Amino acid sequence: MKLFALCISLICISSSSTFANFYFNLFSPDKQLQLNFQLTREGVPFYTLNMDNKTIIKKGLLGIKLKDGISFDEGFQLKQIDTALIFDSWKPVWGEERLIVNHYRSMMVTLTQSTASDREFKIEFRLFNDGLGFRYIFPGQEVLYHFIISDELTTFPLSDDHKCFWIPGDYDSNEYMYSTSKLSEIHALAEKPGTGIGFKSPINDSCVQTPFTLKSKDGFYLAIHEAALINYPAMSLEVNRNQFVLKSHLTPDCYGNKAYLRGGSKSPWRVILLARKAGELITNRIILNLNEPSTIKNTDYIKPGKFIGIWWEMHIGKSSWDYSGKMGLEIPYNQLQASGKHGANGIHVKQYIDFASKEHIPYLLIEGWNTGWEDWYGSWKEQVFDFTKPYPDFDIENISNYAKSKNVKLIMHHETSSAVTDYERQMDQAFRFIKKYEYAGIKSGYVGRIIPRGEHHDGQWMVNHYLRVAEKCAENNLMLDAHESVRPTGLQRTYPNWMACEAARGNEFNAWSVGSPPEHETILPFTRILGGPMDYTPGIFQIKMNYYDSTKTNQLHSTLCKQLALYVTLYSPLQMAADLIENYQQKPDAFQFIKDVPTDWDSTIVLDAEPGDYIYVARKEKNKNDWYIGAITDELSRDFIMNFDFLDADKNYEATIYRDGDTADWQKNPMQYTIEKKKIRKKDKLKIHLAAGGGCAISVKESGK
Amino acid sequence: MKLFALCISLICISSSSTFANFYFNLFSPDKQLQLNFQLTREGVPFYTLNMDNKTIIKKGLLGIKLKDGISFDEGFQLKQIDTALIFDSWKPVWGEERLIVNHYRSMMVTLTQSTASDREFKIEFRLFNDGLGFRYIFPGQEVLYHFIISDELTTFPLSDDHKCFWIPGDYDSNEYMYSTSKLSEIHALAEKPGTGIGFKSPINDSCVQTPFTLKSKDGFYLAIHEAALINYPAMSLEVNRNQFVLKSHLTPDCYGNKAYLRGGSKSPWRVILLARKAGELITNRIILNLNEPSTIKNTDYIKPGKFIGIWWEMHIGKSSWDYSGKMGLEIPYNQLQASGKHGANGIHVKQYIDFASKEHIPYLLIEGWNTGWEDWYGSWKEQVFDFTKPYPDFDIENISNYAKSKNVKLIMHHETSSAVTDYERQMDQAFRFIKKYEYAGIKSGYVGRIIPRGEHHDGQWMVNHYLRVAEKCAENNLMLDAHESVRPTGLQRTYPNWMACEAARGNEFNAWSVGSPPEHETILPFTRILGGPMDYTPGIFQIKMNYYDSTKTNQLHSTLCKQLALYVTLYSPLQMAADLIENYQQKPDAFQFIKDVPTDWDSTIVLDAEPGDYIYVARKEKNKNDWYIGAITDELSRDFIMNFDFLDADKNYEATIYRDGDTADWQKNPMQYTIEKKKIRKKDKLKIHLAAGGGCAISVKESGK
Repeated sequence: MKLFALCISLICISSSSTFANFYFNLFSPDKQLQLNFQLTREGVPFYTLNMDNKTIIKKGLLGIKLKDGISFDEGFQLKQIDTALIFDSWKPVWGEERLIVNHYRSMMVTLTQSTASDREFKIEFRLFNDGLGFRYIFPGQEVLYHFIISDELTTFPLSDDHKCFWIPGDYDSNEYMYSTSKLSEIHALAEKPGTGIGFKSPINDSCVQTPFTLKSKDGFYLAIHEAALINYPAMSLEVNRNQFVLKSHLTPDCYGNKAYLRGGSKSPWRVILLARKAGELITNRIILNLNEPSTIKNTDYIKPGKFIGIWWEMHIGKSSWDYSGKMGLEIPYNQLQASGKHGANGIHVKQYIDFASKEHIPYLLIEGWNTGWEDWYGSWKEQVFDFTKPYPDFDIENISNYAKSKNVKLIMHHETSSAVTDYERQMDQAFRFIKKYEYAGIKSGYVGRIIPRGEHHDGQWMVNHYLRVAEKCAENNLMLDAHESVRPTGLQRTYPNWMACEAARGNEFNAWSVGSPPEHETILPFTRILGGPMDYTPGIFQIKMNYYDSTKTNQLHSTLCKQLALYVTLYSPLQMAADLIENYQQKPDAFQFIKDVPTDWDSTIVLDAEPGDYIYVARKEKNKNDWYIGAITDELSRDFIMNFDFLDADKNYEATIYRDGDTADWQKNPMQYTIEKKKIRKKDKLKIHLAAGGGCAISVKESGK
Repeated sequence: MKLFALCISLICISSSSTFANFYFNLFSPDKQLQLNFQLTREGVPFYTLNMDNKTIIKKGLLGIKLKDGISFDEGFQLKQIDTALIFDSWKPVWGEERLIVNHYRSMMVTLTQSTASDREFKIEFRLFNDGLGFRYIFPGQEVLYHFIISDELTTFPLSDDHKCFWIPGDYDSNEYMYSTSKLSEIHALAEKPGTGIGFKSPINDSCVQTPFTLKSKDGFYLAIHEAALINYPAMSLEVNRNQFVLKSHLTPDCYGNKAYLRGGSKSPWRVILLARKAGELITNRIILNLNEPSTIKNTDYIKPGKFIGIWWEMHIGKSSWDYSGKMGLEIPYNQLQASGKHGANGIHVKQYIDFASKEHIPYLLIEGWNTGWEDWYGSWKEQVFDFTKPYPDFDIENISNYAKSKNVKLIMHHETSSAVTDYERQMDQAFRFIKKYEYAGIKSGYVGRIIPRGEHHDGQWMVNHYLRVAEKCAENNLMLDAHESVRPTGLQRTYPNWMACEAARGNEFNAWSVGSPPEHETILPFTRILGGPMDYTPGIFQIKMNYYDSTKTNQLHSTLCKQLALYVTLYSPLQMAADLIENYQQKPDAFQFIKDVPTDWDSTIVLDAEPGDYIYVARKEKNKNDWYIGAITDELSRDFIMNFDFLDADKNYEATIYRDGDTADWQKNPMQYTIEKKKIRKKDKLKIHLAAGGGCAISVKESGK
C-alpha cells in the first residue's frame, strides 16, 4: 500500500557541464537526519550524515574499482539528481511486526565520467528517520556488459573513537564471540582461546564483520550492515584505528576478484542504522525495507513454528551422527556395522515424533539420517554425503508415514560439509527425494572449507549458492534454515521461505567449547540478528554437561529461565526446543512456556536494552491478544520494574512468570527456577529479578475475568 | 583371456632391514628392454631404461611430495619386490585392432620409510617389448587417509639432445601447432602468431605437453605420455634444456595443490613408448593395455560411425550458432528475434537429416540448438546455456521424430562455455531431456575459462568432471565426444562409450585462423592420438574459404585427397564428414570414399611413416575382408611404391584410388583429384604420387572375379 510518494527531478543538465562546486542536502522525513552529497575536486563522490545536528559520518567516499578498463572511482561529474518522498507500508509473511512502515526520502544521483562519457554510474540513497541506505547502480547493458569488481571504495568515517561490538572479519566463519572495545582498540586477530571454531579464515587484524554496532559518547547508537546481498560478496569493514574510518572490504575469490557483474546490476545496500536508544536498533526495519517484496506467491507452506530435534544429543556425546562409530574412514554402505550409538535410528526418531505430537510441536529435525558421516569432516573431500541414501536403521518411508500419522512435519538435514559442487550435482535428485517424503523444510549446513576450492563462505559464488538453494526450496514448497551460510541481510522479505540462518555463534558452542559468555545473547540482537532471524537453538534445560559425563566442565552460561527468555529476545520464526525430550519431560512446568510461546508476532516492543548488558522485550502474538516478555542479563544480576503500558486498558490478563530462583546463578545454581501466576492489568507494575547470567520469561494472556 | 601369468615374489625382508646397495634388473619379455631399479644413498628411488643396449632413460627419479607431513620422496628402504610375466589379450569394443595383446613383465616394488615405517609406498612397473609403464600406489586407508599432492618428482633423463615434436605445456589448451626442435631448443612461449587459440594458460618457457615424442640420432623413437588419468591432474613435462632431463609438472589448482587423494589410490601410469621404426609408435598399444577393462556391460548402443553436422557452416560464417545475430548481449527468450542466419533451424536440419539418411551416414550433430549463444563467450559468465531449452526455430520433438523416421540418430551438442558448475547443476535435467528425444550421444564443449574459477581444464577437478560426464553418458546409453577436454590417456578402454576427444588443434582452425601447416596431420598420430581417438573433423572438400567470402584468405593446408586419406590416417570411431552437404553433393565420386570408409577395424598396418613428414597406413575393416589405405604428406610432394603384402594371397580385389590430380598442390590447386579403379592382388605394387600437402585414399575391396 503506497500511501504517499512525491518525486522531484532536481537537476537535469547536459552531460558536457562539469557542475563543479555543487552540493546537495537531503533530509529525513522527520528532518532530524541530514545527508549531504558532493564531489571532490577530483570528481570523487562523497557523503556526510548528521543526526540531531551531530556528525555521524564525516566524509564517506563512494566508488567502485573495476579490474579492467575504466573504474567508477573518480573524474565524475553530476548529470542528474532525482529525489522522492515515500510513505509506504507492507505486511510480512511472518515476523516481529504485522505491518512494516517504509518511510524515507530517496535521492538518485546520476554521474558520468569524462573518460567514459557514455557510461552512467548511479548512487541511490534512501534516508529514513532512523538511518540511511545507499547502493551503487551500474550502467546498463550496451555500454559496459560484463565486468569484474576488484575493490569497493565505500568508507564510513566516524566522528569519534566509539565503543563498538564486533567479531573479526573472516571470509568463512561468523562463529566468534563478541568483543567490546573502542574503535582504536580493535585487534581482530587477538583471538580468545578455546573458541572451538572448526574452520575460519580471519582477514587481518583490523577487519571486523557487519553488522558492526557502535555507541557514541554522546549517546547515539549506530550499526553498519548491508541489505539485499545478492550476486555480490559479503562486506567486512577495515578499521582505521587512528582516524576511525571504516572501509568496505569485500570477500574475494581465489584470483582476488570480488564480483563478476554485468551492466544493469546493483550492489547490495550499504546501511547505517541509527538510534538514540539502544532498543531502537532492534526494532529498526530499514534492512527489511531495503529488500525487494516477496517473490513467493503461494505462502501456505511457510508456517513459523517450533521444532525439536535429534541433534543436541550429538553435541553432548550421547549419540552420533554417524552410524558405525568409525569416524575418519569412509565405509561402503554394505559394510556399515551399527555402533549402537546412532541418533537417527527409527525407534528413537519415533519417540521424538510421539513427543512432538503430544506436545504440539509442529516440526522435528533429524540429523545424521543419511550416509557420509563416517568421513565427513576436515579433509576437504568432495564426495561425502549421499542426499538420497538413509542409513540402514532410518527407514525413511516408514518414518515419514509415521510422522504424517502423528501430524508432525519433518525437517531434513542437508549437511554439505561445504562440498558445494557435489551438493549442487545432487540437488535435483535430492529435492525429488524430499518431496516424495513430504518434508516441511531443510536445515542446510556448510561446515568446513568450501569446494569449489578457492571460494569462501562469504564470497559471491557462495552468496549465489545460498540463494539458489532458497529458490529451489521455494519451487518445492520447502522452508529453509541455513547453517554456516553468509549472515542474513533481510532477504527473508524477498524469500520468506528462507526462515532463518545460523551464521553466528549458536548455543551449541556451550556444549563442547569454552562456550559464549553470558553477555553473548545480549549482543546478538544488536548485531547479527539485525540482518535476520537466527536459529540459535535455545531452550536447554540441562545446563551443565557434567550431568552426562562427569569429566566435562562445559556448561551453558545461562540460567534455565534465560533459556526460556531467549524465545522472546532472539527472534526467529523457526525456534528450536533444543534439549533432549527427557529433560523437558522432567520439567513440564517450565516446558509449558516453550509450548506456549509463539514464533510470529503482531508487534514488538523493546522495554529497555543495552548491548552487552541486558535486553527486555515484549511481543504480542500474531492474531491474538496475548503477550510474551523476555528479559535477559549478562553476568550481572539485575532488577527492573516491569510496566504493562502495552496492554489494553480495559482488559484482564493472567501472567505466568518464569523467573530465576532466589539463589539462581548461571555458574552456581543455573537450573533453579520459580513459576508464578499473577493477574495483570495495564497499569500494574512488576518487579523482576534477574540472576547473574539469568533471565525471565512471562506469558501474559487475556483472561475473561 | 589370460594366456599366461607367472608371478615370483623375489624379496621379502623385515621392515627393519635397510637393504642398501641393492639393484634390480627387469627385462622385457623379448629381453630387448632392460629396466633397472635402485635406491640412492639417500633412499631416493630411481630407474634406468635401456633398449638394444642403448640408454633410453639415464637415472629417472621417482617420488611424490605431499603438502603436509611426511612425503614419499626419500629415506626409502626396500621391503619387497614381486615380479610376474603376463601374456594376455583382449578385444576392444571398437578400435584399430580386433584383438590386443598385452604382454609384459611386471615388477611391484614395496618401499617403507624409517620416518614413517608403518606406511608403504609402492611403485608398479610394467615392462613391455615396446615400452614401459609405471605408477605410484599410495598406502591404504588406516595409515594415511586423506592427503594432498604438492609435487610429483618423476623425471625422465634422456640420453641425448633428441629431436622432438612438441606443443607448449598449458593448463587450459591443447590447440597449438606443433614445433619440431632439439630438446635444447625448446622455447614454449615463443608462440607462433595468429594461431587463434581462444583461451590458453601456457605454463612457462620450458614446459611441453604430453604425448611428447622424440627421435634419437641413432634412430629410435620415444613418446612420453600417461595412461588412465583418473582423479589426478594432467602431467606436462618441464624440460631441462642443458641436461635433457624431463620432469613431471602437474596441473595445479588455485592453491597450487596438485591432487587431493586418499590412501589406497594410485597415480596414472607414466608411460614411455619405444620404437625402432616411427610407425611402431602408432600401433603401440601399451596405453590401452595399462587402462582397466571396460566397466560398461551393455555396449549395444556404442556404434562407431560417421556423422555430418550443422557445424562447419558456422566456422565459415555462413550461419550462426546464435538465433538472433546479436552477439554479446543476453536476450530473454521471449524477446529473441530471428536473424535469419541461425544454422540449427528446423528446415535446414531436415535437409541434413535427409542427406544423412540418403547417404547412410548414421549420425547428425546439430550445434547451436539451445539458448545461450547470444552471450556465451569470453566473459567468464556462469549461467550461459540452458540445456533443455531449444531456440524457437528448433522444434526438438518434431526434429527428433523426423530423424527417427529417417533412421538418422542425432548427436546433441552440450557447449558448456566452461561454466562447468552450471552444467553440473543442469546435468540431471539435461540427461532426462536427451533420453526423452532419444539422441545417440553428446558432443561436449569446454571453450573458455573454467568455472569453478581457479580450476583448469587439465586439473584434477576437471579430469574428474570429464569422467563424470562419460559415466553419466554410460548410465544413459549415450556416446560421448568431448571437445576442449583434457587429452585422452586410453580411458576409451574402460569407458568405450567415450568415443573421441578433440583436445588438439582440429581442422576448424583452418577455417578462420592461420590454420595448421601441412605437416600437422603427420604429427598428430605420433603425439596427441597416441592417447586416444581425435575428432579432427576431416573431409573438407571446399578447401579455400574465399569460395564463401572473397575477402578471406584462409584455407585448409591440404588437398582434397588428403582430406579423404585422413579418415584412415587419423583414427576415430566417430568420424565427421565435416563439410557442407552441398559440397558433397557437388562431388559424389569423391564423397563415395567417405561413405565407404569404416570407423572400426580388424587390423592396422603402418606401411611407412615419419613424424612431420608422411604417414602411410592400411587398415582392414572390422568383420570384412576390405582394406582402406590412407597416405598423407607434409608440404613436400612424395612418391612411394605401395605394396599389398597384407592382402590374402588367393583373393582378387578391386582398388578405388582417390589421388591428387596431376597438378594438384595444397596452395595452388588443392581440389584437383583423380579417381581410378584397379584390380589388385597381393603381389601387386602401385606407384602413388602425393602432391605437396596432398594425400591418397584407397579402398581395396574383395571382388568375386
